[in-house]
Amino acid sequence: MADQDFFTNKGPFGLLEIIDKTGATALVDTKISKIISDVAPLDKADADHISFLDNVKYKEQFSATKAGAVFCHEDVAHLAPKNTVCLISKSPYKAYALAAQMFYPIYQNEGSISPNAIIGEGAVIGRNTIIEAGAVIGKNVKIGEGCFIGANASITHTIMGDYCRIYPGVRIGQDGFGFAMDPAGHVKVPQLGRVVIKDHVEVGANSCIDRGSGPDTVIGEGTWIDNLVQIGHNVKIGRGCILIAQSGIAGSSVVEDYAVIAAQAGVAGHLTIGMGAQIAAQSGIMRDVPSGEKFMGSPGAPIKEYLRQVAFLKKAIKR
Amino acid sequence: MADQDFFTNKGPFGLLEIIDKTGATALVDTKISKIISDVAPLDKADADHISFLDNVKYKEQFSATKAGAVFCHEDVAHLAPKNTVCLISKSPYKAYALAAQMFYPIYQNEGSISPNAIIGEGAVIGRNTIIEAGAVIGKNVKIGEGCFIGANASITHTIMGDYCRIYPGVRIGQDGFGFAMDPAGHVKVPQLGRVVIKDHVEVGANSCIDRGSGPDTVIGEGTWIDNLVQIGHNVKIGRGCILIAQSGIAGSSVVEDYAVIAAQAGVAGHLTIGMGAQIAAQSGIMRDVPSGEKFMGSPGAPIKEYLRQVAFLKKAIKR
Amino acid sequence: MADQDFFTNKGPFGLLEIIDKTGATALVDTKISKIISDVAPLDKADADHISFLDNVKYKEQFSATKAGAVFCHEDVAHLAPKNTVCLISKSPYKAYALAAQMFYPIYQNEGSISPNAIIGEGAVIGRNTIIEAGAVIGKNVKIGEGCFIGANASITHTIMGDYCRIYPGVRIGQDGFGFAMDPAGHVKVPQLGRVVIKDHVEVGANSCIDRGSGPDTVIGEGTWIDNLVQIGHNVKIGRGCILIAQSGIAGSSVVEDYAVIAAQAGVAGHLTIGMGAQIAAQSGIMRDVPSGEKFMGSPGAPIKEYLRQVAFLKKAIKR
Repeated sequence: MADQDFFTNKGPFGLLEIIDKTGATALVDTKISKIISDVAPLDKADADHISFLDNVKYKEQFSATKAGAVFCHEDVAHLAPKNTVCLISKSPYKAYALAAQMFYPIYQNEGSISPNAIIGEGAVIGRNTIIEAGAVIGKNVKIGEGCFIGANASITHTIMGDYCRIYPGVRIGQDGFGFAMDPAGHVKVPQLGRVVIKDHVEVGANSCIDRGSGPDTVIGEGTWIDNLVQIGHNVKIGRGCILIAQSGIAGSSVVEDYAVIAAQAGVAGHLTIGMGAQIAAQSGIMRDVPSGEKFMGSPGAPIKEYLRQVAFLKKAIKR
Repeated sequence: MADQDFFTNKGPFGLLEIIDKTGATALVDTKISKIISDVAPLDKADADHISFLDNVKYKEQFSATKAGAVFCHEDVAHLAPKNTVCLISKSPYKAYALAAQMFYPIYQNEGSISPNAIIGEGAVIGRNTIIEAGAVIGKNVKIGEGCFIGANASITHTIMGDYCRIYPGVRIGQDGFGFAMDPAGHVKVPQLGRVVIKDHVEVGANSCIDRGSGPDTVIGEGTWIDNLVQIGHNVKIGRGCILIAQSGIAGSSVVEDYAVIAAQAGVAGHLTIGMGAQIAAQSGIMRDVPSGEKFMGSPGAPIKEYLRQVAFLKKAIKR
Repeated sequence: MADQDFFTNKGPFGLLEIIDKTGATALVDTKISKIISDVAPLDKADADHISFLDNVKYKEQFSATKAGAVFCHEDVAHLAPKNTVCLISKSPYKAYALAAQMFYPIYQNEGSISPNAIIGEGAVIGRNTIIEAGAVIGKNVKIGEGCFIGANASITHTIMGDYCRIYPGVRIGQDGFGFAMDPAGHVKVPQLGRVVIKDHVEVGANSCIDRGSGPDTVIGEGTWIDNLVQIGHNVKIGRGCILIAQSGIAGSSVVEDYAVIAAQAGVAGHLTIGMGAQIAAQSGIMRDVPSGEKFMGSPGAPIKEYLRQVAFLKKAIKR
């Protein structure tokens, strides 16, 4: 279904091979010799396509699909059309993602450095890493294996692990915003730290990660950062975090493993967002957030408290 | 008045020709043989300049202007100095815009591709399109006629119409933020859609438009997007919309024709902002907004309701 | 302490010379013949390092430091270990900044223009200015002495003073967002002003400054702008202001000298933020703010009023 001007389909694959690579279980044995030529949404799929149902909102599309196979939860499998093989998974969306990666691989088997990229003296680029046109890699920067550095990104003062994906226009390693205020003119504090990016990190288009002022700025393994996000100097972000578009983390704050910072939210400086905490969109966090808590609002409060405030106001104006 | 180091004045023009091209009506016939050499604000204009009055706040500048001609509404024409020709228009600002475009044309008569731009294999660039230095156009991208692609912009997986203006540093067509969360590491979902941009679209500096995950991301004809705006994957934006700086539209939401999203506002995913709806600055929209409605606040509410909440709180703290 | 792959230490320096250049006063004379080889945080410093204590929160690190010398306020000097020379300063952080600049100078003694930068016809670049790879400088742009223009930045229609630092990906001088709305299609108003940037201005990564529509957009001397900030057309920003990450100033507003606009705050168009006013993070300012006042909230209000509202709501939901 994907526009072949832009995407190259590595299929077809046998359904058995797909089952094997995604960890799904076929509900019936009879049709698993099928050949699958592509992935597709439920409502666009044909008999040689594979699709998924994760959100029950789409169950009518599921009942009417022409897809040859569909990843789904066990409890909805009885709704499938009779020509569709149900592939049972606890996470149908993840199974679909893995299948789609078979047809359209994320990581390439060979690296390339665009002749229009600029690689600084002493920079080390790992094998199978792709560096696109206009990217500027600073002196002595280290980039691991299997990374992707998008067009017109710039990276200085950085040590990056393997399999990171840095999107176009990202800025990594420039000076943090550090100065001593003075009526006669703010005095710049030299920013003497680096940016350390662990393996499997994604940084979305035009996002910015400043280098540390002395300590390093650190992005933990498997953390995903969306577009136009700001990460201040000395920030430490743990493993597996999600930072959604246009959010910002001010200098020296800590975001622990698996925390989620939703779109346009802001975290003030020198705070800790605990492990697995979730910060709602547009929240403004001005104090530490304990592990596992959900905060919302500006100033941010525990989400139940915030929603009670919203309900109170809604009621108050009706009096 | 414009600095001739940066702008080239294509004038002078006869006042008659300006009247003809802007659809305005001269209040008197006697002086319309004037020659106009430039546009200028009321307070800086000379006898050979043309200006406009749209906001009555500036009526004193109007009464004192030396401009040779001024676009204005009929009901203020009597305030004009006697040497100034009033050009009556229902939209003086629009008439001024059209006149200013005569002196300083927006679209050029001939295209050019900077030798420092990178054009991917199979990309098609329409005639009279300008591509500036450092822009990176991906494989098989299609760009229509009369477009402008600013310095260091990057465009992949995109089909673009005619007369679009893409400002410096814009990112179009990179992967959307799509993944299945998993404790063992988020699993990337291949993003297999495109970005489709219709005619006469503007996209402001450093804004980002992600490509679709399967469906396309679509920007409708004549929609204007300001700087640092985020458009998530699968978003559909209608015709003639306005998205002001630092606003963001999350994945799969629909913004119908002529809607306005003001600065720093956010629209959550999978919502519909109805035709002609207006979303105030910094609003956080978490539900569908009906056509023609005005919403404000975070969480966003109908503007009257929100303003009553603001007034209630203001009063409550005085008790 | 700084990674010598990325930073070049110009030291060592004698403590006397450091005292002389920072204006600090040694509490005792006996040890000022020391040689200092680097700067370091209190907890990482060795006997040949210099550090600082500005925030009493870190006084325990101070008492335990191995630093050879520490900038501090007079009233904490008695807490210093006996082998540490206290250098008394009214602004220890500023003194530290000046010392750190000795070891790691901000401004270079010689300029350079990357062979991969694009310099437009007629552009004038001052001496000792550095222009990095991929930067695009437009026709007739003027850039003063000792400036730094980061990788992939783009600058058009601009007159820039001396000692400015423009970070990677910054967009300066593109068209402002000016148009006459019209159901048949928005009509672009040619943007005929420039951007004027005075001396010692910093503009953070991926920030955008649009040129004026007729008047100029102006950034005053010594103003510092963080990453991802939006400055609309015709905005006038005074001297010594601070604009923190992701904030935005809409068209034609005025920010007077020494005002501070915190992160993610927005200022609507045609307003004045008075001298020395402070706008809290995420505030949405919809009216003029008098000099010296502190505003917070969206819509923004005097900070005491806003905090009373927050306290009221917190209490109200407990009833």
